[in-house]
Amino acid sequence: MTSPAPATTSTPEDALILRENKDQVAWLTLNRPTKLNALSEATIQALSDVLDALADDASVRVVVIKGAGKAFSAGHDLKEMMSRPELEPCATLFNACAKMMLKIHHLPQPVVAMVDGIAAAAGCQLVAQCDLAIASTQSKFATSGINLGLFCATPSVPLSRAIGRKAAAEMLYTGKFISAEEAERLGLLNRAVGAEVLEAEVENLALEIASKSPAAIEFGKRLLLNQLDLPIEEAYVIAAETMAQNMQHPDTRHGVRAFIDKQPMPQWRDRKE
Amino acid sequence: MTSPAPATTSTPEDALILRENKDQVAWLTLNRPTKLNALSEATIQALSDVLDALADDASVRVVVIKGAGKAFSAGHDLKEMMSRPELEPCATLFNACAKMMLKIHHLPQPVVAMVDGIAAAAGCQLVAQCDLAIASTQSKFATSGINLGLFCATPSVPLSRAIGRKAAAEMLYTGKFISAEEAERLGLLNRAVGAEVLEAEVENLALEIASKSPAAIEFGKRLLLNQLDLPIEEAYVIAAETMAQNMQHPDTRHGVRAFIDKQPMPQWRDRKE
Amino acid sequence: MTSPAPATTSTPEDALILRENKDQVAWLTLNRPTKLNALSEATIQALSDVLDALADDASVRVVVIKGAGKAFSAGHDLKEMMSRPELEPCATLFNACAKMMLKIHHLPQPVVAMVDGIAAAAGCQLVAQCDLAIASTQSKFATSGINLGLFCATPSVPLSRAIGRKAAAEMLYTGKFISAEEAERLGLLNRAVGAEVLEAEVENLALEIASKSPAAIEFGKRLLLNQLDLPIEEAYVIAAETMAQNMQHPDTRHGVRAFIDKQPMPQWRDRKE
Repeated sequence: MTSPAPATTSTPEDALILRENKDQVAWLTLNRPTKLNALSEATIQALSDVLDALADDASVRVVVIKGAGKAFSAGHDLKEMMSRPELEPCATLFNACAKMMLKIHHLPQPVVAMVDGIAAAAGCQLVAQCDLAIASTQSKFATSGINLGLFCATPSVPLSRAIGRKAAAEMLYTGKFISAEEAERLGLLNRAVGAEVLEAEVENLALEIASKSPAAIEFGKRLLLNQLDLPIEEAYVIAAETMAQNMQHPDTRHGVRAFIDKQPMPQWRDRKE
Repeated sequence: MTSPAPATTSTPEDALILRENKDQVAWLTLNRPTKLNALSEATIQALSDVLDALADDASVRVVVIKGAGKAFSAGHDLKEMMSRPELEPCATLFNACAKMMLKIHHLPQPVVAMVDGIAAAAGCQLVAQCDLAIASTQSKFATSGINLGLFCATPSVPLSRAIGRKAAAEMLYTGKFISAEEAERLGLLNRAVGAEVLEAEVENLALEIASKSPAAIEFGKRLLLNQLDLPIEEAYVIAAETMAQNMQHPDTRHGVRAFIDKQPMPQWRDRKE
Repeated sequence: MTSPAPATTSTPEDALILRENKDQVAWLTLNRPTKLNALSEATIQALSDVLDALADDASVRVVVIKGAGKAFSAGHDLKEMMSRPELEPCATLFNACAKMMLKIHHLPQPVVAMVDGIAAAAGCQLVAQCDLAIASTQSKFATSGINLGLFCATPSVPLSRAIGRKAAAEMLYTGKFISAEEAERLGLLNRAVGAEVLEAEVENLALEIASKSPAAIEFGKRLLLNQLDLPIEEAYVIAAETMAQNMQHPDTRHGVRAFIDKQPMPQWRDRKE
């Protein structure tokens, strides 16, 4: 565990990952616009560190990830990769990237990808791995490593869990870009919207989720993702346990009582309070 | 095992679950319209009992579940839940509800949800858990527990198996209602139809399935649901076994022979005859 | 392992499976048009043998499967099945068919179904089992065994992994045909196109995939299909390993280097060279 995020809500302008907290939402920006926000080892490490800090930051209820400049992310930093192409440093890099992606999976807060531009290879993986995703209609998505002889293996993990098998196979075997509308149809996006309303749409979604009980969201995200890997009968066992435990939270009892009495919902306390 | 259903095909008008048998289809009605058909402990128990009886009733080939009045079901009975909010009674309640949902999974007959109105929380779960679902276009669907601080954990089990991950996440984290058209697009419904033809559409589907060999449907439903939880190679092993056993049924041999000879299909005998 | 395919790129005109190699694509034709390309034991064996040969044939990068005449395939050969309906020969037949389908799963090369006409029962299974599928808009798809009293158990294995659960249930319990447009919407097809452009569309897709590194495609297909059966954390472990190993291939290093230097991609060598 790293130490909690600093009290300041913004980061130096030249940081690899910019972070701004606003109304209980942490807005993260991949900040290498001249490199199309490539996921270098340092960027992966920086994003991992920020995610570790967010996991411990009860004041943040939702996380948004976006890209600086014209792209969301073009994927791995190929020049850096080619500087150490042997098995061991490659394995270290891809493992570090996979572990960072799994931090999104394990983060107590839902993570929303906000895409405006190209999301390719590990950039497309990041969209697939986020819990939710909204993109501008000018965005494009590809698992394009196959064009260079490097199959997008780690991107295939969340991609094949977000969209159908035949669509995933076509993206992975051809490397072709698909439009945001197609990505919405396939299930990679919650929706595609005009670029001019993208930020407002993402903010609305983030604020909607931030308005819910953080404890319930934390119970829920962990359960939702864990039960997907289980047979249905085992899934129901942990789901029923989760609901019974969720009901023990004082905020939940206040919330259910308020609903019955047609009263406003309580002010939900932050996680771990 | 409970005793078989009574020979009568209808239930007292004030029963929590109405049951009417018609042309080999059992029509079940959630019958607490003044409570939006909330799934109280007694209702869950009554539905469980009816499902147990149906499992043993070879005269019934398809089951339809609908709601009385304006709603399909608004979910759990919150007032009752708040009367015993401690861990143990809550766990008992949610386990009983999960076990009832799994009875639909294990029932030899396919179950069709017929939705005309709101299906929320455990009501939405019931739609997701049914093998098939048709709704009127005026219906709405939500996993709305999160609005009260109680994540729809058990509803997430069948919901996340019926629709894509990003769509499920949005429903579960925002609690928002989606339209019947959207539910169709996402895969929660087989289709949305005008309210004026809803019952006819459901009846057509139910009678279509009821016209098939009950033995083959029983073999099939068990196999279909069991193999989904297995790796593909193991899935194929049990599927090939199932087909070979299905072929041993005398009705199947008559059916295949009739098809070859361009003759009408035989009168399929009921299960367990 | 069988011996490699003969050097000739075509097969006798009366073979059960025609094979033509063209531009690194193997075009296979189910060749029993008077029997609607029913999958008799001999046809299953012939297709298995061809798939075994293709697995060892590094000159082939993509496989297409199509049907001769008006149908893609009507499924099992029912007359033959009825000549030996006892448990053991049936089990032998269904196991042989399942093993053949799994050869498509294990084949190093992607397999594309090209459908123009009816794909029913095991014929529909074949479409679902192929990695990719394109059909003419006049094609129709059904898991129609239930109409004869024989549930399409083995077809349900790839069908329920290609499309949503409620749609799969309706196809399997009603046996009804769906249109190519509906099959595209559900995810059974990559797309439906006019019959007049079907072959060109399939060829474009096949050539696109054939233009990629065969080593990367082989790494990729194995990984994609294996990781789908694993929990997400285990999936990421084997995916990261696969990428690191893929990078050790000399063609991949040349490809990544060429991309960085804005040079044309190398001529990818065949697998196992």
